[in-house]
Amino acid sequence: MVNYYIQPNDNPELTEERKKCLFDTQKLAALYYGGFDKLKKKREFEEFIKNLPEFQNEKNLIFMNRLERFDVNSRKSVAFLEHFFNKVDTSNPDEAAMFYEKFFSYDGSPLSLHFFVFLPNILNSMSQEQQEYWLNLVMEKKIIGTYAQTEMGHGTNLRKLETTAIYDKESDSFIINSPTITSTKWWPGNLGKTCNVTILVAQLYIEGKCYGPHSFMVQIRDFNNHMPLPGIIVGDIGPKFAFSSIDNGYIRFNNVKIPREFMFMKYAKVEKGGKYCKPIHEKAAYGSMVFVRSVMILQQAQYLAMACTIAIRYSCIRRQGELDDKSKEVKVLDYQTQQYRLFPQLARCWAFVSAGKYIMELYNKVNQDMTLGNADLLPQLHCLTSGLKAVISYQAGLGIEQCRMSCGGHGYSHASGLPNIYATQIGGCTYEGENMVMLQQCARYIMKIIDNVKNNKNTLKNDKLFGYYFENINNKRCNNIQEIFETISYKTAVEVYNRLNNLKESGMVHELAWNNCAVDLCHVAKAHIRVFLCFVYNEFINKIDDHQIKSVLSLLKELWEKYELIKISTSVLKYNLISNVRLDEIKNEMYDTLKKVRPQAVSIVDSFDFSDRDMISVLGRRDGNVYENLLKWAQESELNQFEVLPSHKKYFLPLTNTTKKSKL
Amino acid sequence: MVNYYIQPNDNPELTEERKKCLFDTQKLAALYYGGFDKLKKKREFEEFIKNLPEFQNEKNLIFMNRLERFDVNSRKSVAFLEHFFNKVDTSNPDEAAMFYEKFFSYDGSPLSLHFFVFLPNILNSMSQEQQEYWLNLVMEKKIIGTYAQTEMGHGTNLRKLETTAIYDKESDSFIINSPTITSTKWWPGNLGKTCNVTILVAQLYIEGKCYGPHSFMVQIRDFNNHMPLPGIIVGDIGPKFAFSSIDNGYIRFNNVKIPREFMFMKYAKVEKGGKYCKPIHEKAAYGSMVFVRSVMILQQAQYLAMACTIAIRYSCIRRQGELDDKSKEVKVLDYQTQQYRLFPQLARCWAFVSAGKYIMELYNKVNQDMTLGNADLLPQLHCLTSGLKAVISYQAGLGIEQCRMSCGGHGYSHASGLPNIYATQIGGCTYEGENMVMLQQCARYIMKIIDNVKNNKNTLKNDKLFGYYFENINNKRCNNIQEIFETISYKTAVEVYNRLNNLKESGMVHELAWNNCAVDLCHVAKAHIRVFLCFVYNEFINKIDDHQIKSVLSLLKELWEKYELIKISTSVLKYNLISNVRLDEIKNEMYDTLKKVRPQAVSIVDSFDFSDRDMISVLGRRDGNVYENLLKWAQESELNQFEVLPSHKKYFLPLTNTTKKSKL
Repeated sequence: MVNYYIQPNDNPELTEERKKCLFDTQKLAALYYGGFDKLKKKREFEEFIKNLPEFQNEKNLIFMNRLERFDVNSRKSVAFLEHFFNKVDTSNPDEAAMFYEKFFSYDGSPLSLHFFVFLPNILNSMSQEQQEYWLNLVMEKKIIGTYAQTEMGHGTNLRKLETTAIYDKESDSFIINSPTITSTKWWPGNLGKTCNVTILVAQLYIEGKCYGPHSFMVQIRDFNNHMPLPGIIVGDIGPKFAFSSIDNGYIRFNNVKIPREFMFMKYAKVEKGGKYCKPIHEKAAYGSMVFVRSVMILQQAQYLAMACTIAIRYSCIRRQGELDDKSKEVKVLDYQTQQYRLFPQLARCWAFVSAGKYIMELYNKVNQDMTLGNADLLPQLHCLTSGLKAVISYQAGLGIEQCRMSCGGHGYSHASGLPNIYATQIGGCTYEGENMVMLQQCARYIMKIIDNVKNNKNTLKNDKLFGYYFENINNKRCNNIQEIFETISYKTAVEVYNRLNNLKESGMVHELAWNNCAVDLCHVAKAHIRVFLCFVYNEFINKIDDHQIKSVLSLLKELWEKYELIKISTSVLKYNLISNVRLDEIKNEMYDTLKKVRPQAVSIVDSFDFSDRDMISVLGRRDGNVYENLLKWAQESELNQFEVLPSHKKYFLPLTNTTKKSKL
Repeated sequence: MVNYYIQPNDNPELTEERKKCLFDTQKLAALYYGGFDKLKKKREFEEFIKNLPEFQNEKNLIFMNRLERFDVNSRKSVAFLEHFFNKVDTSNPDEAAMFYEKFFSYDGSPLSLHFFVFLPNILNSMSQEQQEYWLNLVMEKKIIGTYAQTEMGHGTNLRKLETTAIYDKESDSFIINSPTITSTKWWPGNLGKTCNVTILVAQLYIEGKCYGPHSFMVQIRDFNNHMPLPGIIVGDIGPKFAFSSIDNGYIRFNNVKIPREFMFMKYAKVEKGGKYCKPIHEKAAYGSMVFVRSVMILQQAQYLAMACTIAIRYSCIRRQGELDDKSKEVKVLDYQTQQYRLFPQLARCWAFVSAGKYIMELYNKVNQDMTLGNADLLPQLHCLTSGLKAVISYQAGLGIEQCRMSCGGHGYSHASGLPNIYATQIGGCTYEGENMVMLQQCARYIMKIIDNVKNNKNTLKNDKLFGYYFENINNKRCNNIQEIFETISYKTAVEVYNRLNNLKESGMVHELAWNNCAVDLCHVAKAHIRVFLCFVYNEFINKIDDHQIKSVLSLLKELWEKYELIKISTSVLKYNLISNVRLDEIKNEMYDTLKKVRPQAVSIVDSFDFSDRDMISVLGRRDGNVYENLLKWAQESELNQFEVLPSHKKYFLPLTNTTKKSKL
């Protein structure tokens, strides 16, 4: 068994770790990327891009201001568009995304929204005829688009968006307006400076009647000189926690007229003269939200995987303090506290990967069903993606910060890459649905299930994800951790369900009763997501053939189960599921598992196969030559371009200009 | 009772909140700042500084690159030095710090280390004669100094620092060297570009013998032209998560010679000829570490207080979704989930404030004792500051992120100020002692106490902070939450103590046994800190005379106690301290407390009396006029200086230059 990441001139601390490898890193990498062919393709892309002229002498983005970043990324965008169609099988969205990813850092690019939101929306929500028209413009590179929904004063509650699209019978067109400050569209990526068209979500009005939010295509800038069109004020919303390379924008409309045909008409339609046709399926619009949340799971896992890679490698390079041998400082990864900070994150990583892969498959199935007119699984998928998105984005954030802090001072420097990974990833708690709202959407579906349970409507009895709610939990034995999680989830849900009903029976309206139970409803959602993660983690590992790979991932899964169990031991004790004494044993077993993971840790993170270009981290370098490169990296600092800062000459030196001696 | 922050033209949403105030905000503000006189002084400084020419038309730092920030802050530094001695009672360190704080944002300045570390070190660790010499140079503004201890490869473990100061008998001087890459001094604030002298911690060698780390004063740049002196390489370490306005630096020495008298000689001494005199008191060097950690408590509380102010005000401006009244969206602060995110943070804030004030008093007492040669309380203070620093910095970080996320998308924008408050504050988990190390230092003292308990050495039996360890806990009734916390702390400590001893009795060396229990030892420390916080919170409130102020803070304390109790309910159940049923009741009481805090929330945060200048936040503005100012703020964005970005013209427009039509 072998770690393929050993190379000459590496830091011997890492080579020593890699020699302990008990599995084939190539096989684990293939598992992460979804097959050897995909791993190969990824490396092919990396090799190809590395040699492009646009990628020579790359400067670290962190040293650039935003204008410089836009210059670099715009140049790369042109190269991207040039090579995309020859190098990529465009019918394969994974491959397309991979190609994009290798061009741009996780900080984003001028094409981010165009590729990942604008195009999918055209494909999912336009009629066939419309698609042809707009995709043609995309292929001719005439348009770069984005998606403008969120307004300055309105996020989650779409029904309250204020932007209006009023049908004008006379001209057979829509007139777009931003009637208030709070109606200003705010946040859409690439809207500020890059895009010349946008999908716009606005309240549709026909003859004074509001039909609710609908999507429209609107040109916002001139195709020749890129100036904003008349009636449009558009700009960048300013710097954010991360995503400096994206021009999140604002836009205001003053009587902007678009042809009727620019409304998205796959589902709802407006005919000439103003006749409104309702969509066949109310929930069809759900689709794109659910899609983005599905994709987010693997993305979030990847941020955490990067942070783990950086922190675990560095923890084998950094030595500090002594244990039994007083003659030599130990690697900090030998401390139990360090292992406890890092390995559960790595274990969660693979739980999230299992979940992400499962959800993508489920999404594809649901999507296929829906084209056949069957939306039965959509509510389940919606429940799962809402809950997962919330749980995973939050846990990934906590995990990345643990990784960062475990690197001590160096973790706080941008040289580690970790501050930016955190700042980027943590956006996931907010975008695509604020987490508290997401958890409650997940809980809403679970409450419906409990309602069915209580009323003996056993609709989902044999469902592998939700069926456990219908089992006779009170007689269930907690033989394994999966069953303990299920029992806790069930009991928590029933408790809240009962409280909710009591409040309503006492005369409270549903919304108020719900609000009174809202925090506990979030717990209900989290409890189910825990069951789901445990289930998919198990299923994922059971499918693995290779003995060694199975063994190393099983170790992580064991750690994950015990770690999560200890985290919720209040419920374990409350429902008397296992004894105090046994719980203490499990805790000690968990500490023992940390020791078992220890020798494999570097090889596990190596197998994520992140290139140094991907990670943008001095601490996380594959070769482990950290310290000399920290010094080298620092030379690029803006301040180091002057031996004496101009501001120092200007302000401080005159303070002491009476000094004659230059030295004490 | 009255909220003094109401003004005409405010956002009526905030005025409505402020009218609900049940206490005198002036009195609560005075309590926060430590008296009416201090509050008055603070406002006086604010008024004075606001009118200085250097502060007119202030641009938001977030839109500046580092060179621009240095220009602005250097200009302000000159003004600061000009006015400091007339405006400030320099014998009052609080007042001096306050004056500094009003000049510079929490992002730091060229004078940060000079004032808060360099000067105190001279005062604490130099002989009287040395002090006179160096303070004179400070007064003449000839020197700006910092403190260089941490090396690239060495942080916490001072004994392993590699920089050497070798005594040269011939010239009666020390020769300073950086023998390896990892010995490069790395991180000291203001070292990179600003300072011309530094306190340097290096291994002292005399005639081949190493005497361990000692402090030396070293000139590093020429007083006339500010160029690095021969043998010195110095520069900025590059960008970090925050603190862009500070030039954290690196420095390398090649045979740099300093006079023998430049060694810090209050404690240890080297005489002419090389005779080494040991310090009278081994622990004297402790002092400055303990001081910085003591100061940090209130600082950390302040970051959290700012975040609470921003989030709570904004949550009364933002409306989203409906509850019982379908005609109007509700303020998001009316959601239980929002209250649960925010109010416990506010409650923790005041717990931290209580702790910070208590610790500063204790520090002053210990310091006084020590000048009289009595260091008895130092180990206690060291234990408390280590543990508190770790617990508070971590909890403040979690809290600030909850505040940020509770603002939805706008919280992610730098317009909220929250990303930078978080990135700044969270450094506190790492600097001045990495938190995991700090918790274990705290636990080390507690293990000694348990050892005394077991051996019936009741040294601290009547101590108000540690005495509970000596009570007969098994017979103790848990009549209130304080007693529950004490019982848990005691039992947790004894459990770990026993496991530690069992491991050692089974033949394990102490360090390995300790490492095997390290995670649980951290829990021991946290459990004691919880007891301490509960104690000081109570004591703080008990001292308040004003009935209304006492009442509103008692509400927060009640929330704090219940929130913390629920967080550790595993231990409550494990030790069978209260029943399941009672625990559920307490949880529901906690939710009820949230509702009681709700109408006072804005007035409580108003009373922190932060000015808009302090907070640098559009969302947190006192006047609540958020939305129009978001739009205004965005105009300053670097990207908005061009209607069409130069990079767009260069790269994207040529892609479509065959287009004739400029509009669809």
